[in-house]
Amino acid sequence: MVIMTTTSSATFLPVLERIAEEIDHTPGRGRPADYIPALAARDPRSFGMAVAEPDGTVYGVGDWREPFSAQSITKVFTLALDLAREGDELWEHVGREPSGNPFNSLVQLEYENGIPRNPFINAGALVVTDRLQTRTGDAAGELLDFLRAESGNPALDFDTEVAASEAVHGDRNAALAHFMASYGNIDNDIPVLLDQYFRQCSVAASCADLALATGFLARHGIRADGSRLLSRSQAKQVNAIMLTCGTYDAAGNFAYRVGLPGKSGVGGGIIAVVPGRCTLCVWSPGLDEHGNSVAGVAALDRFTTLTGLSIF
Amino acid sequence: MVIMTTTSSATFLPVLERIAEEIDHTPGRGRPADYIPALAARDPRSFGMAVAEPDGTVYGVGDWREPFSAQSITKVFTLALDLAREGDELWEHVGREPSGNPFNSLVQLEYENGIPRNPFINAGALVVTDRLQTRTGDAAGELLDFLRAESGNPALDFDTEVAASEAVHGDRNAALAHFMASYGNIDNDIPVLLDQYFRQCSVAASCADLALATGFLARHGIRADGSRLLSRSQAKQVNAIMLTCGTYDAAGNFAYRVGLPGKSGVGGGIIAVVPGRCTLCVWSPGLDEHGNSVAGVAALDRFTTLTGLSIF
Amino acid sequence: MVIMTTTSSATFLPVLERIAEEIDHTPGRGRPADYIPALAARDPRSFGMAVAEPDGTVYGVGDWREPFSAQSITKVFTLALDLAREGDELWEHVGREPSGNPFNSLVQLEYENGIPRNPFINAGALVVTDRLQTRTGDAAGELLDFLRAESGNPALDFDTEVAASEAVHGDRNAALAHFMASYGNIDNDIPVLLDQYFRQCSVAASCADLALATGFLARHGIRADGSRLLSRSQAKQVNAIMLTCGTYDAAGNFAYRVGLPGKSGVGGGIIAVVPGRCTLCVWSPGLDEHGNSVAGVAALDRFTTLTGLSIF
Amino acid sequence: MVIMTTTSSATFLPVLERIAEEIDHTPGRGRPADYIPALAARDPRSFGMAVAEPDGTVYGVGDWREPFSAQSITKVFTLALDLAREGDELWEHVGREPSGNPFNSLVQLEYENGIPRNPFINAGALVVTDRLQTRTGDAAGELLDFLRAESGNPALDFDTEVAASEAVHGDRNAALAHFMASYGNIDNDIPVLLDQYFRQCSVAASCADLALATGFLARHGIRADGSRLLSRSQAKQVNAIMLTCGTYDAAGNFAYRVGLPGKSGVGGGIIAVVPGRCTLCVWSPGLDEHGNSVAGVAALDRFTTLTGLSIF
Repeated sequence: MVIMTTTSSATFLPVLERIAEEIDHTPGRGRPADYIPALAARDPRSFGMAVAEPDGTVYGVGDWREPFSAQSITKVFTLALDLAREGDELWEHVGREPSGNPFNSLVQLEYENGIPRNPFINAGALVVTDRLQTRTGDAAGELLDFLRAESGNPALDFDTEVAASEAVHGDRNAALAHFMASYGNIDNDIPVLLDQYFRQCSVAASCADLALATGFLARHGIRADGSRLLSRSQAKQVNAIMLTCGTYDAAGNFAYRVGLPGKSGVGGGIIAVVPGRCTLCVWSPGLDEHGNSVAGVAALDRFTTLTGLSIF
Repeated sequence: MVIMTTTSSATFLPVLERIAEEIDHTPGRGRPADYIPALAARDPRSFGMAVAEPDGTVYGVGDWREPFSAQSITKVFTLALDLAREGDELWEHVGREPSGNPFNSLVQLEYENGIPRNPFINAGALVVTDRLQTRTGDAAGELLDFLRAESGNPALDFDTEVAASEAVHGDRNAALAHFMASYGNIDNDIPVLLDQYFRQCSVAASCADLALATGFLARHGIRADGSRLLSRSQAKQVNAIMLTCGTYDAAGNFAYRVGLPGKSGVGGGIIAVVPGRCTLCVWSPGLDEHGNSVAGVAALDRFTTLTGLSIF
Repeated sequence: MVIMTTTSSATFLPVLERIAEEIDHTPGRGRPADYIPALAARDPRSFGMAVAEPDGTVYGVGDWREPFSAQSITKVFTLALDLAREGDELWEHVGREPSGNPFNSLVQLEYENGIPRNPFINAGALVVTDRLQTRTGDAAGELLDFLRAESGNPALDFDTEVAASEAVHGDRNAALAHFMASYGNIDNDIPVLLDQYFRQCSVAASCADLALATGFLARHGIRADGSRLLSRSQAKQVNAIMLTCGTYDAAGNFAYRVGLPGKSGVGGGIIAVVPGRCTLCVWSPGLDEHGNSVAGVAALDRFTTLTGLSIF
Repeated sequence: MVIMTTTSSATFLPVLERIAEEIDHTPGRGRPADYIPALAARDPRSFGMAVAEPDGTVYGVGDWREPFSAQSITKVFTLALDLAREGDELWEHVGREPSGNPFNSLVQLEYENGIPRNPFINAGALVVTDRLQTRTGDAAGELLDFLRAESGNPALDFDTEVAASEAVHGDRNAALAHFMASYGNIDNDIPVLLDQYFRQCSVAASCADLALATGFLARHGIRADGSRLLSRSQAKQVNAIMLTCGTYDAAGNFAYRVGLPGKSGVGGGIIAVVPGRCTLCVWSPGLDEHGNSVAGVAALDRFTTLTGLSIF
């Protein structure tokens, strides 16, 4: 187990070490996502966890420096980047309510005239990327710049193999995009949008990178360099959406067990926020039936139990 | 405006006064629920707000001593009373996920084999009452005892007129109960269950009463008399369910604007919890299209903005 | 094999004999309905088939004189009896479109404000019985009188054991009835309605009885005694509804294979109409996954193939 | 009014003349489809009706020689052309049950794993065209050849303006195609498929052309030149699907009022079959809320009433 701290204030390091040890002795890690070869190939025994403090200190345990596929975790950052630009107008194009639907969101999209329930279901993320694309001309590039700046890691990049694999399996996202376009809720050409979207999802980053990049949500909207990305109220809004919608159809269970705003990805990563205090990222590739990392949820559950840091 | 404090530590009183004044100057209060005469008759200009501190201090503004129909707010208390008795077994009979469905819950009930999504939709509340009835033989009486003890108000009671009106309009709840019974998820005879349920919903209580009765959720499970009702973890669970499911199909919006665990009722009341710090109850009969008090949500929004007490 | 003819004009008897022989050599009969003991106990090898000619001649093969539980077949008769009384006003309370839904009809009931899609889904049959009950004070009795008169069999009766079993498993129908009552689409007290409905479904009758009782649909609305029950147009309407909605979620397949208006019941019976020519009833208790008699559908398929009597 | 007969046996001409006169005096024709300029521009007072007898005689009234946009009527011909080639294997890729859903078919597509309910909803027609494309390399060309041969009208052609307009509004069909592709139920590249599909829908033909082209369904599968396209059983199957699924969400009502297998298009045309006897095509551009021609349904209703030719 490699442990590295950038400063001496690694407050939660003993807790992380205890969690890593417990996880190490826990059998049953779920199965990696298998719809893409690059994800399916990851070792389900991998486990990393990092904490970033508001001052930029980051430390971790296990494979916390190992890059993995960020996937849906990136939806938090594109949401913040677009919200910073267009503000509340965004909410005319995507909702903020949990989807609560074991089915794909097509039913609700139809019932609600092409307005997705929230920015974290695929349909909603496509709308956010579409709008960011319209405003920047390169949504994925904008995301990459942001992640590199916040993590201080210039090597952080897209994984072109993963992006290409996503495109091969992209019919469902193409269906969502065309369907919303039929309601006038997509601006860009759909092949362009899908290319941006698949690149965005393919970002490879480590627990350290993502814990740092999430820092603005613990700092109430302030970026690593001290500039403001989101207003205090907007940062609160993003946290609220993470809590109610961040872990697919298991958001209620995640709030119940972990009690922190969080966002998971099918690459096995989960980011979480203790507002005003710190951010976390945990990674282990094995997923439960809802698409959330089995060891990741368990580790965050232990973290809030051991530290008492739940928001509830 | 009547203001009364039971001790000198009325920390948030100035904030409440400012909010009451702002609300007073705000036009547009929505419309009271009209499916029951006793609710429809309430004056939409009524407004009361109370804060209870963990030590039992309670104070408020406006009509904070005026009893109103608690309705769905009581679902929080029956949930806690049943959870205290049976623990996690309850979750085999009712879920913890947001329902996210503008329709009534019948579709999801069917899809999920008679297991309601959460304890705060009507189907879920019927299951909780059914289970509490099985364990106590008088679910509504159990609730009443609890509310009287926590609020210190022995005059708190059912409103028999309201309960009778609910029964007249009870076909939809009867349909839900029979439907779940067809899946084996209801134990009691349905007329018995519905009678208990309608009495439970009819409880008349004031902002002061309900802010005090909610205190155990700010005290991490401890009742007013110092005894433990719920474990720390269970209290956190109830708060998490309130945040994700407490305001009908607008839970995301409530989390976004208010950022506190809350539970509303069609009588116009809303309770909210600042974990470890205080509980609130606000009341104004006019509802928005989701069934939440217009002035109530606005007042809680102002409260967290002015105090910075959001959990996010 | 017992063969009995009441007149010499048993036109289709050789065809029936050939079908019975083929069926006898066909393995795989499906499984009897098992939600009620009296249905589950029937021998899946039972098979009977009868043809009634417009002049009242009836003949058959196999167990064509053996009474079985008519179940949903009775919905055709209550529909005709109510339509005869109230005419087109009925269609404001129940639709005429296929339901096309593998789920129970609750979703569509909700979407369409308590108006069932057609008279042959359970919700629609409850509405028809409710309306007939309002007009006659004894819907089930009215049905029984009709069936006895048309079949010439005064011993035809309700099966009280079956009716009692239906009531025990009646929660889903109670849910449907209460749900529609919440939309104002049920007039009678629900226990009264359910009692009528379960008795109606419990009618025990033979293939001979039911083929004769269906005769008015081959005679364009004329009863056995020469009096008119339905107008020519109404008889055509009932036939059209049987074709599009008569065999649960397999109506399209039935139209495709058999090509006749038909109505099945979970007792294993199916009635069918060759307009202007004859009526048929076939019975075999084993059901397919849609609730239609396996041997019954096969026999009718063979009948139209061998005689060329499909309406298409 | 132009009347032309190719032989002397214009059996139903007096009936058509009477219907045309009645329709002429009937106010209220609905509104033409407005999603495509070329459809919206048609005069709602236009009305034509033609009958084709099995021997190829055709005659009509009103605008029966005027070409209009065939639209969904073409789905009958592509179904027959594909069924002739691949037989029952087609039914593994598309169902035969009514959709019974006022919503678009996305919900059911999802529930049934990408297998559309029947060949006449858009999703099902896309599957049929996709399969015919795979088998022929030019599905639309195959359709055109067939229509020209059966109608004897070599001038019958695609309307390129209509096809281009369809493509502009094609997002919903693109969504359906991608969605089914995600289940592996589409073989061709989606832009290729959509091009074929939009051309197919754009066919411009008259009542005379389409009544003649439908003749094989009255002749139990035999084409105009005496060759067999479909087996007798397959022709019966196509008729059955037209009856149960041919007029969008109003198939039950059409069966009830008209009592013939029929297929409508949003161009205002409807074809209908009297098996063994004749075929009809009626056209009037004004549509009802289900997308069926108002005057067209009324005219067919009168036809079966006046002639007694309903199949029921």
